[in-house]
Amino acid sequence: MSKLIGSIREAIEACGLKDGMTISFHHHMRNGDYVLNMVLDEIAKMGIKNITVNASSVFDTHAPIIDHIKNGVVTGLECNYMGAKVGKAISEGVMENPVIFRSHGGRPSDMEKGTSHIDVAFVAAPTADNRGNMTGKYGKSACGSMGYAFADAYNADKVVCITDNLVEYPVVGFSIPEVYVDHVVVVDKIGEPSGIVSGTTKITKDPVGLKMAQYAAKVVKASGLLKDGFSFQTGAGGATLAAAKYIKEMMLEDNIKGSFGMGGITKYMVEMLNEGCFKALIDVQCFDLDAVESIKNNPNHMEVSASQYAGVNGSAVNSLDVVLLGATQVDLDFNVNVHTDSNGYIMGGSGGHADTAAGSKLAIIIAPLVRARLPLIVDRVTCITTPGHTVDVVVTQRGIAVNPNRPELKEKLVKAGLPVVEIDELKAIAEKITGVPKPIKLDESKVVAKVLYRDGTVIDTIKKVVTE
Amino acid sequence: MSKLIGSIREAIEACGLKDGMTISFHHHMRNGDYVLNMVLDEIAKMGIKNITVNASSVFDTHAPIIDHIKNGVVTGLECNYMGAKVGKAISEGVMENPVIFRSHGGRPSDMEKGTSHIDVAFVAAPTADNRGNMTGKYGKSACGSMGYAFADAYNADKVVCITDNLVEYPVVGFSIPEVYVDHVVVVDKIGEPSGIVSGTTKITKDPVGLKMAQYAAKVVKASGLLKDGFSFQTGAGGATLAAAKYIKEMMLEDNIKGSFGMGGITKYMVEMLNEGCFKALIDVQCFDLDAVESIKNNPNHMEVSASQYAGVNGSAVNSLDVVLLGATQVDLDFNVNVHTDSNGYIMGGSGGHADTAAGSKLAIIIAPLVRARLPLIVDRVTCITTPGHTVDVVVTQRGIAVNPNRPELKEKLVKAGLPVVEIDELKAIAEKITGVPKPIKLDESKVVAKVLYRDGTVIDTIKKVVTE
Repeated sequence: MSKLIGSIREAIEACGLKDGMTISFHHHMRNGDYVLNMVLDEIAKMGIKNITVNASSVFDTHAPIIDHIKNGVVTGLECNYMGAKVGKAISEGVMENPVIFRSHGGRPSDMEKGTSHIDVAFVAAPTADNRGNMTGKYGKSACGSMGYAFADAYNADKVVCITDNLVEYPVVGFSIPEVYVDHVVVVDKIGEPSGIVSGTTKITKDPVGLKMAQYAAKVVKASGLLKDGFSFQTGAGGATLAAAKYIKEMMLEDNIKGSFGMGGITKYMVEMLNEGCFKALIDVQCFDLDAVESIKNNPNHMEVSASQYAGVNGSAVNSLDVVLLGATQVDLDFNVNVHTDSNGYIMGGSGGHADTAAGSKLAIIIAPLVRARLPLIVDRVTCITTPGHTVDVVVTQRGIAVNPNRPELKEKLVKAGLPVVEIDELKAIAEKITGVPKPIKLDESKVVAKVLYRDGTVIDTIKKVVTE
Repeated sequence: MSKLIGSIREAIEACGLKDGMTISFHHHMRNGDYVLNMVLDEIAKMGIKNITVNASSVFDTHAPIIDHIKNGVVTGLECNYMGAKVGKAISEGVMENPVIFRSHGGRPSDMEKGTSHIDVAFVAAPTADNRGNMTGKYGKSACGSMGYAFADAYNADKVVCITDNLVEYPVVGFSIPEVYVDHVVVVDKIGEPSGIVSGTTKITKDPVGLKMAQYAAKVVKASGLLKDGFSFQTGAGGATLAAAKYIKEMMLEDNIKGSFGMGGITKYMVEMLNEGCFKALIDVQCFDLDAVESIKNNPNHMEVSASQYAGVNGSAVNSLDVVLLGATQVDLDFNVNVHTDSNGYIMGGSGGHADTAAGSKLAIIIAPLVRARLPLIVDRVTCITTPGHTVDVVVTQRGIAVNPNRPELKEKLVKAGLPVVEIDELKAIAEKITGVPKPIKLDESKVVAKVLYRDGTVIDTIKKVVTE
């Protein structure tokens, strides 16, 4: 009755993987993940071609995929986020078919609707038993929540569990139960847990960042949402984490008992839980090892699937009061870009950006007005990640713009003495510093990526960068 | 974003329930459940007819369904277990269409395969929030595991959560997440928790029962399975619980570290967990309030869905070493009946009987050789609940019969000095005491129930009882 199989190769064979099929991966090991590369290398060795890879996110550590693309092993790529290394290659046109970008909620929802079909899911499991029960909470490669992997396990035709910590049946506190698993492979290492902490997950010390954070915290307070039952999500950026710190201080001072903190979880959110700011954490992904430790030990720190976090058919994002989000560009219609940098190169993706903006009562963008001598505010973002009608406030160090569709909110912020300005004023201030930037050159005839909104419709496309 | 709706009636309307549809219920409140009756009363008042009820089990408390059958509100009934009150009415032919019996594993598997379609699931939830996250672990009507309700929530077109303990979002430690729920109704009471303890859930003091229990424990020991990693399920019958007690004593004496205990969980299994006999409990249903308390507080006491417990496509039953089961009849081919009493009246059902017998390495039937002056062993059981080829041993107070398909096991039991006899000898001993029973009169032309095996095929039918 054991589902153990000798190697990744044998699992690939047993699943009947063939040219043209789609395989999937989750990204909880983040930049420490070994599994995607291991599986693709094996597939390449077996001579299988024309594979579509649907990975919830692609990090720099996955750069070997570029060679597999060049060799025709991988001809399709779908993800919710893409790091700059692979992003550069895609932006320069390495792949013929456009990348498909989704949001963290759109990905599981598209699988559930059947508009995204997975032939074989390869699930990296920090702990598993020989029947395929898995958890991310234990093991030498513990990653905490396995939220993004649920949809893969539930919906793929075949599911391979790849673990480096096989324990006796049954895994206590399993996340994904055996009923969804076809094969279990034991490998030496599924990844490097230190790589889980990738990107900024520390509070900024930069005075500009701190100023923006203070503004953002004051916006939250002025909105009237900061009261008992308050729910909150923040990303792992330095300024948003600083804002979280200010919000925490206000909550403790006024003895506000919030309901939940959500998202990719950092130690700052764990501290808020432990200090009584929240009743619970809703955790789809752990951003650091403090979060991994907490989800293991604290039953109020709850693992949820991506579908439960941000899916289209009613999910936790719809109960969210406030989300703090970043941006590389914001335009005059409040559309936000987190897919490309100011030169048009892919270096990110929605993740939960579009989902939380749509679901929350108050979506706040925090970003410095000028970055790398380029203005944050532009006439039209290079790529729409999150549509402007779901974005409420843009906070910069030089002023705060409120979406005209929220006049009552604008009034509150003005009343609170916050430096509210129009978005085109912010643009003018920035351009005074930087000058009007030259338009970036893109090859309009070549789409390198399509961005799907959370409902599955195409919200924008990303064009090939013109290299000199 | 709240899913709260004012009443059961409004929920029924919102779900678009119409004549001819199928509704479902779970049975964790057991004989204390109010929800099935409340919903059917409302449906009757609304004038809806021709409803099929798929309830994981039907208890005596659900006797009002008989009137709804007579009135044409309910014209189909599907369940895994049926108490004697409703069983009597069905056996006497109250309903035109035959009842469909499934096993606890077959029911969710049939839903997953699409061979059992649920239009609207009504899920009794001891605790829920306004978005439909639910748990059975807390609340005045806490029932512990909600294992049987998962399939209903996952597979029904519409899902109504009915709770008597609405808490602030989000429910901590939810069992069924909001993504599966359409409406939430708050009622005064979903049931009477004291009714959860229904049927025998105490160790027998009867000397015959104790003798059988000792034999059964010795069979387990002689089988060679009682060693580190041992896994075990027992029902809630007095003799099987006594056997569990003896097995526990042997495990403690020999310092055997088992892997898991499973099933409907009683305080005896909880004690085995707490005393280190098992690493974990796999709990699809709590049989008493001690189990409810344990599953709330002990992370090693794990809730599982019925699919995970006993589903056809690989589930925990396949990892089970030993199961102790009861019987009303056993025949010369080792087929077991737990659906009808010796007079042919329905008073039970498979529950997990057929599933665990099929999955386990050693399925032991424990039953007294004579009951109500009728012999246990018959030529052909009135109804095959569990096919003989999956049953290994029959333990009675007068001897132990081993299935001829297990000669190596027979040899071990003989070597251990156990009173091994042939099954036809057991029959002869019984008939010496009782005489050869008169065949019961059944109306062969009228099928009152079809029994589906766990794979969905019809394994037997139950005929109408002839009343004088």
